[in-house]
Amino acid sequence: MDGDVRDATTMMAEIGARAKAAANELAFAPAEARRAALLAAADAIDSRVGAIEAANAQDMEFGEAKALSPAMLDRLLLTPERIAAMAEGLRAVAAQPDPVGEVMAEWDRPNGLHIRRVRTPLGVVGVIYESRPNVTADAGGLCLKSGNAAILRGGSESFNSTIAIHACLVDGLRAAGLPEAAVQIAPTRSRAFVGAMLSAPEWIDVIVPRGGKGLVGLVQREARVPVFAHLEGICHVYVDAGADAAKARAVVLNAKTRRTGICGAAECLLIDRAILADLGATLVADLVAAGVEVRGDAELAALPGVVPAAADDFGHEFLDMIIAARVVDGVDGAIAHIRRYGSQHTDCIVTADDAAATRFFTRLDSAILIRNASTQFADGGEFGMGAEIGIATGKMHARGPVGAMQLTSFKYLVDGDGTIRA
Amino acid sequence: MDGDVRDATTMMAEIGARAKAAANELAFAPAEARRAALLAAADAIDSRVGAIEAANAQDMEFGEAKALSPAMLDRLLLTPERIAAMAEGLRAVAAQPDPVGEVMAEWDRPNGLHIRRVRTPLGVVGVIYESRPNVTADAGGLCLKSGNAAILRGGSESFNSTIAIHACLVDGLRAAGLPEAAVQIAPTRSRAFVGAMLSAPEWIDVIVPRGGKGLVGLVQREARVPVFAHLEGICHVYVDAGADAAKARAVVLNAKTRRTGICGAAECLLIDRAILADLGATLVADLVAAGVEVRGDAELAALPGVVPAAADDFGHEFLDMIIAARVVDGVDGAIAHIRRYGSQHTDCIVTADDAAATRFFTRLDSAILIRNASTQFADGGEFGMGAEIGIATGKMHARGPVGAMQLTSFKYLVDGDGTIRA
Repeated sequence: MDGDVRDATTMMAEIGARAKAAANELAFAPAEARRAALLAAADAIDSRVGAIEAANAQDMEFGEAKALSPAMLDRLLLTPERIAAMAEGLRAVAAQPDPVGEVMAEWDRPNGLHIRRVRTPLGVVGVIYESRPNVTADAGGLCLKSGNAAILRGGSESFNSTIAIHACLVDGLRAAGLPEAAVQIAPTRSRAFVGAMLSAPEWIDVIVPRGGKGLVGLVQREARVPVFAHLEGICHVYVDAGADAAKARAVVLNAKTRRTGICGAAECLLIDRAILADLGATLVADLVAAGVEVRGDAELAALPGVVPAAADDFGHEFLDMIIAARVVDGVDGAIAHIRRYGSQHTDCIVTADDAAATRFFTRLDSAILIRNASTQFADGGEFGMGAEIGIATGKMHARGPVGAMQLTSFKYLVDGDGTIRA
Repeated sequence: MDGDVRDATTMMAEIGARAKAAANELAFAPAEARRAALLAAADAIDSRVGAIEAANAQDMEFGEAKALSPAMLDRLLLTPERIAAMAEGLRAVAAQPDPVGEVMAEWDRPNGLHIRRVRTPLGVVGVIYESRPNVTADAGGLCLKSGNAAILRGGSESFNSTIAIHACLVDGLRAAGLPEAAVQIAPTRSRAFVGAMLSAPEWIDVIVPRGGKGLVGLVQREARVPVFAHLEGICHVYVDAGADAAKARAVVLNAKTRRTGICGAAECLLIDRAILADLGATLVADLVAAGVEVRGDAELAALPGVVPAAADDFGHEFLDMIIAARVVDGVDGAIAHIRRYGSQHTDCIVTADDAAATRFFTRLDSAILIRNASTQFADGGEFGMGAEIGIATGKMHARGPVGAMQLTSFKYLVDGDGTIRA
C-alpha cells in the first residue's frame, strides 16, 4: 500500500467506528429527536448563509483556477436562493412520515405467538458525489430521517462548501442531543478515500454514488459494499397505434425536451408501424421543430429533418437535444427493443388500449413503467417521497427513486407466553 | 483456466441463458399456471416413489463406499415417508397466497398520476446445497411459486436422487405449459460448477447456500452475486430479573435441547445477576439434569455440574448438547454481550417486564428477536410462511426466514392521462 492508501484506510476505520457507534444510538433515537435535528440544521443553514457563501467562493476560485467547464462551475455555485432551497429541503424531509419503527406487518400464529415485522435503519450509508455541494444537505438529511449514520464524500472541488454545510448539520444534531458522528464528511480530498469507502463492508452497509457515468461505473465495478445506483437512464417512449394523438405529442416532447440532462429524459422514441404515416410523422416533425436532432432508422430517415441513426445510437444515453427513433411492430416490437437496449430505469407507453398497456407493464421489468405520462416524472419528489437520495435500477432491496423508506431494513419481533416448540 | 473451470463456465453460460429466457416467461405466467405446475410436480413425486428410491439407493451405495458419516448418510436417505413429505411440501407452497403481481402500495399524486408499487420475481435464483436431496423439491418449489427460474446445485453425493426429483418438477412444468428450463439442475458433479455459479452475476440474481458453515462461508467469501444466508446461528436466551420462573424454565430447556443441530438452537444462556441465586441456579440445574454440558463463567462455574467456560465458548455455535452461560448485569448487560458475540440471527428475552423487553427489542438488531418463547421458532414454517428457502442475517433485501415473498423485487407502474412535467 502506498502512503495515501494506508492513510485513507486508517481514516476510514476511525470514521467507520464512529459512524457505527452513532448508528447504534440513532437506531433507537425517538423520531422527534431526528425531526428536531433536521429542523435545527435548516435553521443553522438559514443563519449562516454568509459563511456558506464565503466557503463556496473559495471553491469557485479553486474551480476557476482549475479551469472547470461553465456547466461544472454552475453546479458548484451556491447562490442565496440555492442555500435557502437546501434549508427548505431539510424541512420537507422533516415533515415526511417517520419510517423507523413502522410495523410493516403483524400476525398471530395458532400457538399464540404474535409476530411483527418492524422497520429498522440499514446502519451506515456512504454517499459519494461530485460537484453539487447541496447533496451534502439532501443526502445527510435523508440518512438522518431514516435513522442511518452517513459518511459523505463530496467532490474535491466542493470541499470548503461541504465543510460549511456539514457544520450546519452537526449544529442540528447537537441541538437535538444526537451524536455528532451521525453525519460525517470525508476528512481529505484524496481520491484514496473513495477506494477506502468502497472496500469497507465492515463499516458501511450501502454506498450511494451520485454523479456521472464515470463515477457510478467506478463504484459499481470496485465496491465490495452493496450499491444503490443506476448507471444510465436509457428511457424509451413507445407510441402505440392506440395512442391519443394530442397526449402522445405532449408526452413525447416533454419527455425529451423539458430537461435533457436528467436520467429520466427520453433517449429513444419507438413508433408503432401502424401510425407511422400520420401520428408518427407528426411526432418526429414536432421534435425537429423543437430543435431536437432525431436520429432515425431507415424508414424514419426518409422524413424531413431526420438524420440516419448509427447502430450505437440505440441504447445510448445522449443527455442532450438528440433522440434515437425507430419503427417497431406494435407493443411486442417495443418490448423486444426495450429488453435489448433498455437500462431498466424508466420506460413509457402512450396508448388508450388497455390490453397493450397491460402487456407493456407485465412483460417489461424496468424499475418504473409509465403509461400516458412523461418519463421526466422519474423522481422521488414527483413520486411524493419528499426527496430521493438517488434512483436505483438493481432488483435487490431498493428500486426506482430511493427515499428515506428504502434506506431501511427490518427485523421480526416475536411475543410469546412461555411458548415452546413441540 | 484449467479444463474443468472452462467447461463449468461454458455450461453455466448455457444454463444461465436458458434460465434467463425461462424467467422472462415466468414473470408474466399466471399464478394459476405456477400453482398447477407445483401440484402436478407433487403428483409426479407420488407416482414415482419407486424410481426416486432406486436413484437414492445408488447414492447411498456411493456414500457408503465413500465412508460418509452415519449422520451424513441419514441426511442423504430418502424413505417413502420423506418422499411423501416432499410432495406435501409442494402442495403446501402451492396453497400459499401468490406473491407475484401483488400491489404493495398505490397512491395518487396531485397532478393526477396514479402510482402502483407491484411485486415482481427477482429473476434467476441459484441454490447451492449439501447432502439433503429434498432441498431440490423445496427450493425448486419456492422459486417457482415466486415466479423465479431456479438453478439447483445439490451435493455431489445426492446426484442421482436430485436428478430423479428434478424430473418430477419438470413433469409439473410441462403439464402446466411452463418452460422446462424454469427449474434446472447442475449438469455435473464437478466443484468447478459451484465456482461458475458464484461468478455469474449476468445470469444469476441471487444465490442461496444451504448447508454447513464451510459451504456458507465459501459462498459468502467468493460470490460476485448477492447472497441470502446466515453463516451461524449463535442464538442467546437472556433470562431477566422480571422473568416468570416456569416460563423461563420451559423456554430455556426447549431452546437448547429440542433439536441441537438447527440454526435456531440456543447456544448461550445469559442470566440476570439479580436472580442468579434462585431462578438462575434452577435453570442451570435443569440443563445439567437434561444432559447438557453447561460451560459457565467464573460465577456459574461454582454451581454443581457446571464446567468452566473458555473465552471462545462465547460466540460459539455448538450445534450440540453444550451451552455457554454467563451472568450479566440486567438487560443492558445482555444487550452488550449479544452485540459483541451474537450473529444477528435470533435472540430471546424472558421477562414479564415490558420496559426491559422494549429495551431488548429496540436496542438489538437481530433478524429475529423473541420474548418469552423458544428460539427454535426461528423457521419459515413456524412463522406461517409455508416454507423457507433459508434464513438470512444480512440487512439487505431479505432477513429472517426467506419465503416466496422475499424472493421477489418490485417495480413502479405509473398511469397518467397525457401528463407532462412542468
